[in-house]
Amino acid sequence: MRKETVGFIGLGIMGQAMAANVLKAGWPLLVWNRSPGPAEALAVKGALVAGSPRELARKVDVTICMLTGNEAVSEVLFGENGLAEVLGPGKTLLNMSTIAPALAEEFSARLAAKGADYLDCPVSGSKKPAEEGTLIVLAGGKADVVTTREPLLLSMAQKVIHCGPAGKGSLMKMTVNLLLSVMNAGLAEAVGFGAAGGLAVGTMLEVILSGPLSCGLFKLKAPMLEAGAFPAQFPLKHMAKDLKYVSDTAYAQKTPVPLALSALTLYTAGLAQGCGDEDFAAVAKVLGLLAGRE
Amino acid sequence: MRKETVGFIGLGIMGQAMAANVLKAGWPLLVWNRSPGPAEALAVKGALVAGSPRELARKVDVTICMLTGNEAVSEVLFGENGLAEVLGPGKTLLNMSTIAPALAEEFSARLAAKGADYLDCPVSGSKKPAEEGTLIVLAGGKADVVTTREPLLLSMAQKVIHCGPAGKGSLMKMTVNLLLSVMNAGLAEAVGFGAAGGLAVGTMLEVILSGPLSCGLFKLKAPMLEAGAFPAQFPLKHMAKDLKYVSDTAYAQKTPVPLALSALTLYTAGLAQGCGDEDFAAVAKVLGLLAGRE
Amino acid sequence: MRKETVGFIGLGIMGQAMAANVLKAGWPLLVWNRSPGPAEALAVKGALVAGSPRELARKVDVTICMLTGNEAVSEVLFGENGLAEVLGPGKTLLNMSTIAPALAEEFSARLAAKGADYLDCPVSGSKKPAEEGTLIVLAGGKADVVTTREPLLLSMAQKVIHCGPAGKGSLMKMTVNLLLSVMNAGLAEAVGFGAAGGLAVGTMLEVILSGPLSCGLFKLKAPMLEAGAFPAQFPLKHMAKDLKYVSDTAYAQKTPVPLALSALTLYTAGLAQGCGDEDFAAVAKVLGLLAGRE
Amino acid sequence: MRKETVGFIGLGIMGQAMAANVLKAGWPLLVWNRSPGPAEALAVKGALVAGSPRELARKVDVTICMLTGNEAVSEVLFGENGLAEVLGPGKTLLNMSTIAPALAEEFSARLAAKGADYLDCPVSGSKKPAEEGTLIVLAGGKADVVTTREPLLLSMAQKVIHCGPAGKGSLMKMTVNLLLSVMNAGLAEAVGFGAAGGLAVGTMLEVILSGPLSCGLFKLKAPMLEAGAFPAQFPLKHMAKDLKYVSDTAYAQKTPVPLALSALTLYTAGLAQGCGDEDFAAVAKVLGLLAGRE
Repeated sequence: MRKETVGFIGLGIMGQAMAANVLKAGWPLLVWNRSPGPAEALAVKGALVAGSPRELARKVDVTICMLTGNEAVSEVLFGENGLAEVLGPGKTLLNMSTIAPALAEEFSARLAAKGADYLDCPVSGSKKPAEEGTLIVLAGGKADVVTTREPLLLSMAQKVIHCGPAGKGSLMKMTVNLLLSVMNAGLAEAVGFGAAGGLAVGTMLEVILSGPLSCGLFKLKAPMLEAGAFPAQFPLKHMAKDLKYVSDTAYAQKTPVPLALSALTLYTAGLAQGCGDEDFAAVAKVLGLLAGRE
Repeated sequence: MRKETVGFIGLGIMGQAMAANVLKAGWPLLVWNRSPGPAEALAVKGALVAGSPRELARKVDVTICMLTGNEAVSEVLFGENGLAEVLGPGKTLLNMSTIAPALAEEFSARLAAKGADYLDCPVSGSKKPAEEGTLIVLAGGKADVVTTREPLLLSMAQKVIHCGPAGKGSLMKMTVNLLLSVMNAGLAEAVGFGAAGGLAVGTMLEVILSGPLSCGLFKLKAPMLEAGAFPAQFPLKHMAKDLKYVSDTAYAQKTPVPLALSALTLYTAGLAQGCGDEDFAAVAKVLGLLAGRE
Repeated sequence: MRKETVGFIGLGIMGQAMAANVLKAGWPLLVWNRSPGPAEALAVKGALVAGSPRELARKVDVTICMLTGNEAVSEVLFGENGLAEVLGPGKTLLNMSTIAPALAEEFSARLAAKGADYLDCPVSGSKKPAEEGTLIVLAGGKADVVTTREPLLLSMAQKVIHCGPAGKGSLMKMTVNLLLSVMNAGLAEAVGFGAAGGLAVGTMLEVILSGPLSCGLFKLKAPMLEAGAFPAQFPLKHMAKDLKYVSDTAYAQKTPVPLALSALTLYTAGLAQGCGDEDFAAVAKVLGLLAGRE
Repeated sequence: MRKETVGFIGLGIMGQAMAANVLKAGWPLLVWNRSPGPAEALAVKGALVAGSPRELARKVDVTICMLTGNEAVSEVLFGENGLAEVLGPGKTLLNMSTIAPALAEEFSARLAAKGADYLDCPVSGSKKPAEEGTLIVLAGGKADVVTTREPLLLSMAQKVIHCGPAGKGSLMKMTVNLLLSVMNAGLAEAVGFGAAGGLAVGTMLEVILSGPLSCGLFKLKAPMLEAGAFPAQFPLKHMAKDLKYVSDTAYAQKTPVPLALSALTLYTAGLAQGCGDEDFAAVAKVLGLLAGRE
């Protein structure tokens, strides 16, 4: 049985690594990216390059999108020259971008009306798991579509977790990112609090990483807090955007989220301080500023 | 060389397990507790029982306190019939109770004036690590006193981390508990948010425990959140009290701690709801109440 | 010179009173409302009734909209059968509804493209000032259009304040409502705090209304807090919606608004408690619930 | 009937004006202040000057204290050479300082044990009402003592409001100051929000002062916000201290106060920024800093 053809749109830090893993797993791959550099890098590895998202979607069975934010995905799918135009029976769209749950539900309904399959399947994990193919896929959609697409998704991920119908993958991503935003800001606040009282940053991190609060996230952020330098793994502006989606969803659901909104204040201040392109651990700089340390 | 004699005051859930480990390591042990039951249980294992804290402190070289809160420790040390009366040169007090950093500094100064040694040495870890002797000791005091007392402390702990002069052990404990309070409330908020949108609690916990946010704390709390039942490992009233010390210390230091204060609102509401004796994960009930789910 | 003809769309609590004042001031008036009752009441006073928003806009020189929320205004203006279709040179739209500033800017631009004039002119004040014609109009738009339309606006208001170009009237409304939401929740929190400590609600209100914090808002809310009953003057669900626009605008501007977000948590909980149709002072019930008083 | 003799301790900005009004009303007055300048100014007007608080209290029937904070009042009353030593039957202490409610209850009990009368009677109002004798006294204590001392209190105030037994005057003051702290920070946040979006500060203040949110407080703060200069009427460090008492009392009562704690974060940051001696409206600078405007 022939392997279906796959298209990949959006070759940023995450997308480039994910597309490379799809290729490595042996899927015939067509790619497209707004700026041409990353597509060429994949072409060297054997991918073909499409001239536009719509051309890509027309040529392949399964189109994967990995873009940033509601606007970008809406534009590529349903904007002028949007690829949804050429989707229909026999075509599948896997949206791995992080978007608002309500928008994922809308996309799913619009594609269903055209006879195409849609999976809402954002991922948990950042640059390194993307490179190693150890992401976790948070899938929302019909169970049979999830099952059919699992082999392809597992070329990029260690695990596919089916969260419910379309929109629920995005909601799960929001749930995880709510917690992520709070933990990251909590770490910065705790370390700032102790430092103000005279504790050494290294000693605090040693204590935290020795006990029941120790986790992969804190291991990644500890060197940043020690150095006071925040090269982006997950840019603060993306965390702020995701928290905004969380807050929109929480309001629509009538669910109070006090810690998430406290965190949103801090990340918004981070944007205002010009830290949007730094790692989201740079929220520590906002707390330092408030405390008069910087 | 003879092993010095040790006294242990405060045989609650934590203290009982810790005293048993001191005994198991071969230290001659004298114990005291307000209610007699726990002392008798240790007597069966070979401890002697003192008639009062002061009698205990008079008879031993090293007195350990493991009590709850500023008031209890102040009373036992410096209240009427307080044991500080009999401390002086050659005597050491190891305060392993969690108290406010400012109070730890004051105790240290008052005992130094009498010629006695004081270590501020609260622990990180709850019931299970106490039983297994795998606590982490957060020590504040003079380096030579920390070194001298390390063997005794290691009978209860896997590690002794010297955090600075007296008061800094307590400050480290506050730093860790600030983060603990925020992570625990953050987990409850995230899970409540997802549940309100239709995600299964078990699926959310599976996702969270599969990725970089996974930690010992969340593994302990996951079954509580799934069952909606919160038998106390660390009672909510103690978390609230520790957060109050954090807020007092933060104010004195002029350090803003917005997430800790958001969490304090939730734990205070937990006290008002009558959840003080449940596990601090019962903060999930407060969020459920706010969201109209309970 | 003939008086221009005026159309009024949206005859809710506010709109009905405002339209009656336009009529009383002698303007030829055509009205439309989704449900027919309020239009009939105005017909008795001399207004004509249009069959649809588009018919209304076609027939009059100046169309006034007083509807609730972004969606309702968008639908009436630019939805299927929207009235914008018939606007053009010589026609003016006065949008007195409270909408998000970004949307007001968009409406202005779309109407400018058709050659029609647009004023963004929400009002400050609720039911009673609407009846008495003592509202304050917060106008955003071209200065000459504001000047031309001032006589009409002053039939409903005591004052027209020009805040800047289109969108700035809505932004001013958001600014006022941010403060309104915080003051109203602050009053409820203060009174709940004192009551929990044993102060009489009446005595607290006497003190507050005797000093520099006394204001029209608190005089309106005092009887509600004393009685514990919250008949809607300004429904909680509208306050929540406006705060959501504030939070959207603040995020877009990168302006942290910590108090507004704390208030949003409380009003969102009010929605979840089913208090959306009560007065926004019912936020006191949320605080009472948190404190275990209800 | 002879007028009883009065002593006044604490001649700061408020105390000096209040003592002058006592004198003007014809009461024989003895004064004391830590630094001698203000006492001399009153001596010129006819007051006698005591050598110490204890000497003052020994010589007069009624001792008034107007000091800053728990520590200062505790020291003057019960510290070494404290004046409580000489209080007893026939003597009255009027504590007009703002202290924590729990401390007021303790003072009352300790003086009752000595047979002396105690009124807990902080004031609402700042410099100008103190000068004009238009303060509002928030009295806590026995009804007959309040009645007996009303004439003396009315030499400084327009109104005496009996709030309940000792401690309730202080609790009322905390209630008012909770609201004060929230309104003042809310004004700064609203104005900062609008300014970030392009509104003129003067126009915003005109709108706010034209409607139902207008109050004496905002009239006092408007010129500060327009000028961006904050000469102290009520220093930020005192507001921060009072909010700390609010937060202590709220915790002891198990009452969640989310807005007060959000405000506490901002005022604490104000202390950290070195604005403690500026007016508490300088909290606007903290919000400006967070928003990247300063």
